[in-house]
Amino acid sequence: MSVSHDVAAIGNAIVDVIAPAEDAFLAANDLVKGSMMLIDEARAHDLYGRMGQAIEASGGSAGNTVAGVASFGGRAAYVGKVSADQLGEVFQHDTRALGVHFETPMLAGGPATGRCLINVTPDGERTMCTFLGASVELTAADVSASVIEGAAIVYLEGYLFDPPGARRAFAKAAGLARAAGRTIAITLSDAFVVERHRAALLEFIETEVDLVFANEIELKSLFQTDDFDAATRAIRGRAGVAAITRGEKGSIVLTDTECVAVDAEPVAKVLDTTGAGDQYAAGFMLGLARGRPFEVCARLGGLAAAEVISHYGPRPAVSLAELAAAHGLF
Amino acid sequence: MSVSHDVAAIGNAIVDVIAPAEDAFLAANDLVKGSMMLIDEARAHDLYGRMGQAIEASGGSAGNTVAGVASFGGRAAYVGKVSADQLGEVFQHDTRALGVHFETPMLAGGPATGRCLINVTPDGERTMCTFLGASVELTAADVSASVIEGAAIVYLEGYLFDPPGARRAFAKAAGLARAAGRTIAITLSDAFVVERHRAALLEFIETEVDLVFANEIELKSLFQTDDFDAATRAIRGRAGVAAITRGEKGSIVLTDTECVAVDAEPVAKVLDTTGAGDQYAAGFMLGLARGRPFEVCARLGGLAAAEVISHYGPRPAVSLAELAAAHGLF
Repeated sequence: MSVSHDVAAIGNAIVDVIAPAEDAFLAANDLVKGSMMLIDEARAHDLYGRMGQAIEASGGSAGNTVAGVASFGGRAAYVGKVSADQLGEVFQHDTRALGVHFETPMLAGGPATGRCLINVTPDGERTMCTFLGASVELTAADVSASVIEGAAIVYLEGYLFDPPGARRAFAKAAGLARAAGRTIAITLSDAFVVERHRAALLEFIETEVDLVFANEIELKSLFQTDDFDAATRAIRGRAGVAAITRGEKGSIVLTDTECVAVDAEPVAKVLDTTGAGDQYAAGFMLGLARGRPFEVCARLGGLAAAEVISHYGPRPAVSLAELAAAHGLF
Repeated sequence: MSVSHDVAAIGNAIVDVIAPAEDAFLAANDLVKGSMMLIDEARAHDLYGRMGQAIEASGGSAGNTVAGVASFGGRAAYVGKVSADQLGEVFQHDTRALGVHFETPMLAGGPATGRCLINVTPDGERTMCTFLGASVELTAADVSASVIEGAAIVYLEGYLFDPPGARRAFAKAAGLARAAGRTIAITLSDAFVVERHRAALLEFIETEVDLVFANEIELKSLFQTDDFDAATRAIRGRAGVAAITRGEKGSIVLTDTECVAVDAEPVAKVLDTTGAGDQYAAGFMLGLARGRPFEVCARLGGLAAAEVISHYGPRPAVSLAELAAAHGLF
């Protein structure tokens, strides 16, 4: 089958609700800075009531990544579940407005569209509380074989290990992608996700995955070590390619035989780190799908991450294709 | 009755949907740059489908103004109608999160919460298409006597002249405010609003209004002249105080005996002019409610306008009280 998309991604379809907050607010609400915590609808209602004035923007980790791929001029497809409500319409609109193929049917009569309450502290760090809502209703039936088989890279969110139905969708997509000879990529998503699903994630990586995205904390959590070098040795034996992001220290790309380190792109002022990892994955995969060497892939990822943390919101505010061209990367 | 709020405002309660757009998009969709056009739900759906990826933020002209008053540390109340839907909850949350008194009952079973589709061109100019939705269901019964009689200044949107029910709410509020000896302020809102309701607006200004906000274009439209000086002479005879905004030329305050001109606050880069007039009114009225001279009122307004046009979104992103203190105005 010919390749119709550079990247097809499956994820929890979520609308972000982003508000500035002081560190004291996190403490008063038992929130662990920089983490993602799952909350139920009652807690979401309660926490929202205590948050400041917010803006809403379509998010979801993999949703942000396909937005980044599209902004680079890549062809992207997305699979994820929203409800047939106003926030679901917002998510569907924003995803399609970028030219992303997105045909997952909206859920009728179930939970509302999922949302992620994001408190951004003055240092730009984001702390997320997610009410998964309709996104947990994603099923294997929503995974279209033609979309998966027609994508150069199939990208899966670690967050999908939380909802059981989504996990079956995840497994189906991986099976289809493997049979079609496609590259399978996964992001570990969050250290708490890794803690909740460590064994299953490790097994999945060893048996199915070609490309792993993780940040330093997630990687260390995966191998239950505080020693970054030990964690990098451990992942090299298990994943074909691992792209590890290290915040202001840049990123490194590891294979059995290679180790490529790339500096972070300078940022004048970090306003909101939401989406940094998602955009890194977008740039990296677009580079990979276009056959660029790992160093260029990592630089494209770093460029997209730097753009998104310099403003509020999880998706690019400018054309990443133009930005990459200006940096001589396209 | 004692004063419980500095400003009580009545307006069309609207959620903004803000997307970047090229000038060619405006032309292709018959939109007049910088204006506000009323559209029905079908047109809203159609136009939204052609717009780019957007963010959502609570807006509404008077809603933005009370948000500004609250950001200055003022006490504000708001009257406006949203539907009992997700966007209505967003509007209610954002308004209350600022400490604004907002108790208008949500509409059940009628049109959806109103929204304003805002296309922001690269020059920072905003072009607005508004589907009024539930906001037209505001009625005189929603205007609480205690809120109006307890406010130092009662502020009314010119936009309210469009929905007939809202106009009756407007008249009731003016009557209550006059009887209680409160200051009545109005903004002309938009040149097309002035064209649609010129005679009624003029009569209302002459008989009821103490303080008029207008920009240069709206003022010229009110008196059907291209001569700004002629327009300023005309308004001086009719309104107690007129505060006229002139974009990068600053603003002037006119009374029968005074004419105070204040320069615009410098802005490094204009990103999105949405809310500039609304925030000017916020600063001006807060100053007036606190007994400051017109020059200080106008400078407070200019400061708030400069802040809001330097980022996306119609409401302040920082504490205006701290900003004013840093400028020695508080």
